[in-house]
Amino acid sequence: MEKTSPSALGVEHIEAFKEILGAQYVFVDEETLNYYSHDETENLHYLPQVVVKPRTAQEVSAILKICNAHLIPVTPRGGGTGLSGGALPHLGGVLLSTERMNSILQIDERNLQVTTEPGVITEVLQEAVKEKKLFYPPDPSSRGSCFIGGNIAENSGGPKAVKYGVVKDYVLNLEMVLPTGEIIRTGSNVLKNVTGYNLTQLVVGSEGTLGIVTKIVLKLIPLPTFELLMLVPFRDLEQAGEAVSAIFRAGFTPSAMELMEINALKFVSKFVDSTAVPITDDTAAHLIIEVDGNNMDVLMSEMESIGNLLTQYDIGEIYFAEDAAQKTELWKLRRRAAEAVKSIGFTIEEDTVVPRAELPALIKGVKALGVKHDFEVVCYGHAGDGNLHVRIRKQGIPNSYGNEPMNKVLRELFELVHSLGGTISAEHGIGLIQKSFTDIVFDKANLRLMRAIKLGFDPNNILNAGKIFDLAD
Amino acid sequence: MEKTSPSALGVEHIEAFKEILGAQYVFVDEETLNYYSHDETENLHYLPQVVVKPRTAQEVSAILKICNAHLIPVTPRGGGTGLSGGALPHLGGVLLSTERMNSILQIDERNLQVTTEPGVITEVLQEAVKEKKLFYPPDPSSRGSCFIGGNIAENSGGPKAVKYGVVKDYVLNLEMVLPTGEIIRTGSNVLKNVTGYNLTQLVVGSEGTLGIVTKIVLKLIPLPTFELLMLVPFRDLEQAGEAVSAIFRAGFTPSAMELMEINALKFVSKFVDSTAVPITDDTAAHLIIEVDGNNMDVLMSEMESIGNLLTQYDIGEIYFAEDAAQKTELWKLRRRAAEAVKSIGFTIEEDTVVPRAELPALIKGVKALGVKHDFEVVCYGHAGDGNLHVRIRKQGIPNSYGNEPMNKVLRELFELVHSLGGTISAEHGIGLIQKSFTDIVFDKANLRLMRAIKLGFDPNNILNAGKIFDLAD
Repeated sequence: MEKTSPSALGVEHIEAFKEILGAQYVFVDEETLNYYSHDETENLHYLPQVVVKPRTAQEVSAILKICNAHLIPVTPRGGGTGLSGGALPHLGGVLLSTERMNSILQIDERNLQVTTEPGVITEVLQEAVKEKKLFYPPDPSSRGSCFIGGNIAENSGGPKAVKYGVVKDYVLNLEMVLPTGEIIRTGSNVLKNVTGYNLTQLVVGSEGTLGIVTKIVLKLIPLPTFELLMLVPFRDLEQAGEAVSAIFRAGFTPSAMELMEINALKFVSKFVDSTAVPITDDTAAHLIIEVDGNNMDVLMSEMESIGNLLTQYDIGEIYFAEDAAQKTELWKLRRRAAEAVKSIGFTIEEDTVVPRAELPALIKGVKALGVKHDFEVVCYGHAGDGNLHVRIRKQGIPNSYGNEPMNKVLRELFELVHSLGGTISAEHGIGLIQKSFTDIVFDKANLRLMRAIKLGFDPNNILNAGKIFDLAD
Repeated sequence: MEKTSPSALGVEHIEAFKEILGAQYVFVDEETLNYYSHDETENLHYLPQVVVKPRTAQEVSAILKICNAHLIPVTPRGGGTGLSGGALPHLGGVLLSTERMNSILQIDERNLQVTTEPGVITEVLQEAVKEKKLFYPPDPSSRGSCFIGGNIAENSGGPKAVKYGVVKDYVLNLEMVLPTGEIIRTGSNVLKNVTGYNLTQLVVGSEGTLGIVTKIVLKLIPLPTFELLMLVPFRDLEQAGEAVSAIFRAGFTPSAMELMEINALKFVSKFVDSTAVPITDDTAAHLIIEVDGNNMDVLMSEMESIGNLLTQYDIGEIYFAEDAAQKTELWKLRRRAAEAVKSIGFTIEEDTVVPRAELPALIKGVKALGVKHDFEVVCYGHAGDGNLHVRIRKQGIPNSYGNEPMNKVLRELFELVHSLGGTISAEHGIGLIQKSFTDIVFDKANLRLMRAIKLGFDPNNILNAGKIFDLAD
């Protein structure tokens, strides 16, 4: 499908990379190539021909210039936690890991900004700014191992997005190496900017196809002093979905509003060996609701009002997390849900998103699809954003995108999402594995524009080629 | 500089427009052409050859197809309140006004969204959603006459941006007619989306050069119940700038934080005949500080804490707006500042922005520039965002971008801004008049990318050509 070919990479290029980086940062051994052949996307493996680990933008530039001149495919990689195959070197060639570009360069307390390199682990960055009483809210489940650079590539979200927005809402400026080797700044370190096209926002979420980000300037906000967390059991899954939009319509903006279907909770409780949440037979799903702010009385009163509002639904006893340990335990159950269900064969995670009030219709439709095709279905996700993660499984068929019956169900799922005004990825990206479904949401003109943009940035199509879309039909 | 030429427009095209729109919406009379020859940008006038007023996306598409086929320049126009010449038909041709596309299509209370046409006046939209207790925060000074479509084109801000962000933070999805005539949706009506490149964010702030927006989906938030407003007189202008970042560093996030230099206040008080704010001889500037929220006690306590914090500076007596009338009066003084100083010959308004904590250095530098070149300088603006509007004037020389001594001072001003980590436009855009200064902030690679994007959307360069940048050097 793509013109670039791994065969373009020769020994002479590998020697050139060694000269640029030092031989110790250029890898062709089997173990390393294997390690970088997969990410967290189902069970896909593609071997790169060489792995390079540059330290500076100048080194990235020198490597890209060689690859551009010789049409060698380059796949950038952050923490390798992606769920759409964005970091998979499916064309072979060069795997460029940003792991050595891992310094937080400056926490600017005067301007509430942080400048960081892309290889910093998201949680490390969050903790570093937290020490200064500052807050960087985007918070993917993988925060303990994903890189901030990967978060830029996928426009990551996480539970706090419902109040605080996603990565794109915090990126002020990027230093980026273009596939042709130039090092540019996409914007300026300011809060408002309408000086030319918004290249910053174009690059956020572009899945490493437009350039390799080497420096990131993020906006920070004051760290809220308090947070309260509660868990609300619902006897009916659709009602849980209805409650979500009712809470917002009543004027509340929780700092998190997560949904977990009961079977997801069962799997994860077993997986992490936790009894923190009592699982009763008549519970269909839980909502995890968090509020945060600087005034405890206000938060207590908000929680009480939300609790009162929810009595109109068929709910069980509300559970309040009393202390930090209980909060951590609850969040652990939510954060590790994906890992738990993956471990028992729900390999593919879909990342559907609809307008918030359409969540009950989405849940209903997803369940109906499961029945129709005799698939097991597990749902959980960022309900406050209308972002539902859906995992399906059927005994006897491979849990993989290559499988025809699987693809048929997924296509119906995405068509449902589209019919509800939603789209096929909220925070995971299209990458390699969702490409074949984008015809549901892109029309030809959209695709033409994206291809033109890609060629403007990457005229030889060397960088993460074949991710999101192919250049030709 | 641009290849397209007004001479391409012939009588046959005007006849075709009449067939598409009806003759009553196609204008070639002198009065109409004159009316659409200028916006609020200094004193510039460029006559279009024909003015068209389509009602639907299909009509826009039909017109653009003709213009694209015959290389006829098209200039889109909203409310005509722009300050960078974005709506000026400097190449003649077709002026396309969106004024008839002026319906609010749906206020979706279930999803906290509004779908609107581009020709709705921003304040009308704000009031309509306010009736449903919903809030659309972006709020340019011209909100009583500007169009929401123009706000999308310029990524407008206004006083609330400091807490609530700018237009880009509220746009979920756009319907847009490409210069080649296709009607596309840039995204989806969801809160999170990483399904292909973010065309929505690319279009916001693109100053009408990439397409004509015909439908806009905006995110809304719950309307805060209360707001408090205070006015703090400073004896030293730079200290006022320092206080701004001190307030944020102390953990407060006011809903507005505006700066007005004393001469701006004097001019506008006279202009609107107001004595609301006592002007004392020893005052150099005022900060207007607003907080909002849902708990009056919390707000009162916040105001008190901010007031206490400010006692470390050399300030006069703090003035609290007691009621709605006083608040309205204070905001009127701020909102009409630009108009007032323009009326006495400060025709050009610059839109500088720096990281917030650099505001004192910017103010100091601006004043020094005035002394160096013997120019009068007036400053006011959205201090909380680091966004300072600067107006300069010198008796005896034209207050216009064409003027050489004026351009020299402006270039030094923008170089100062750039040296402080800032850029040349925060919310007004580059348009026609700031183009010659963009070399200060764009390098060649940035320009190459923007040109490639432009040609991807508009291969014949018919739409608002020569705004932001030229296609060739």
